[in-house]
Amino acid sequence: MLIREAAADDWPRIWPFWQRIVSAGETYAWDPHTSEEDARALWTAPGKRVYVVEDDAGAVVASAYVTPNYGGPAARIANAGFMVDPDRSGQGFGRALAEHLLAAAKADGYRAMVFNAVVETNPAVGLWTSLGFTILGTVPDAYEHARHGLVGLHIMYKAL
Amino acid sequence: MLIREAAADDWPRIWPFWQRIVSAGETYAWDPHTSEEDARALWTAPGKRVYVVEDDAGAVVASAYVTPNYGGPAARIANAGFMVDPDRSGQGFGRALAEHLLAAAKADGYRAMVFNAVVETNPAVGLWTSLGFTILGTVPDAYEHARHGLVGLHIMYKAL
Repeated sequence: MLIREAAADDWPRIWPFWQRIVSAGETYAWDPHTSEEDARALWTAPGKRVYVVEDDAGAVVASAYVTPNYGGPAARIANAGFMVDPDRSGQGFGRALAEHLLAAAKADGYRAMVFNAVVETNPAVGLWTSLGFTILGTVPDAYEHARHGLVGLHIMYKAL
Repeated sequence: MLIREAAADDWPRIWPFWQRIVSAGETYAWDPHTSEEDARALWTAPGKRVYVVEDDAGAVVASAYVTPNYGGPAARIANAGFMVDPDRSGQGFGRALAEHLLAAAKADGYRAMVFNAVVETNPAVGLWTSLGFTILGTVPDAYEHARHGLVGLHIMYKAL
């Protein structure tokens, strides 16, 4: 596997799993009907550092971004977004990408990473916890999950 | 006092205290050197419902916005920003505006309001607590306060 910064021509290889994940309405607090144009703007907005993971055959199987979670006096706290192609889950790409993100964010001068809205039923909660993230708190009944109804959103934190 | 939705020509009356508050580097996680153009874009972005408070002489002494804190399946959770002219603090404008915001957000269909980044030394924490907000958690050492050094950022929550 290869983890590298994304290039502009990677987007068409991110979009298929991006759309599949967001349209499922189970893990992201974005409109399930987000257009490709809006999705690209969300994922690759100015200021976001975007990564992709290629498998050994060169297919893009995961992507993530890192960006300041706040501005001004709090700009050294990072936020990240993170997606693994559902067809390629359970093969270690997510954990490898997560470890890469954390090291890269620290190298970029961030003091900590915060996720603002981790759906409490998302299996990724276990990944983040195993990497040292703690749940600072949970916004109750905040997310209308496509299968589970109203569930909470965790705020998760890890010092870098 | 009059609390009403802002009109486009209110901005020049908001900007003087907006600039003073943000440039102080004590309460907002925005660049203290934000330009007027960027400030206007932040405060009155599409999708934000903006309010102002006029005193009995017609001066604009406070402003706030309400906007979805997340998108898609979590879009019924509100976020708000809130400023009172420092020269007019302690005169009840802040509490009246806060109560108005909460009622308006509920009327607009929001289920709850969340603040993502309340500087823990901000006296407004007391106002929000008195109005029924709870501190869901605190991001430690997240905000480089101009006078106090690194302080935490509270995530605060109230069901509507």
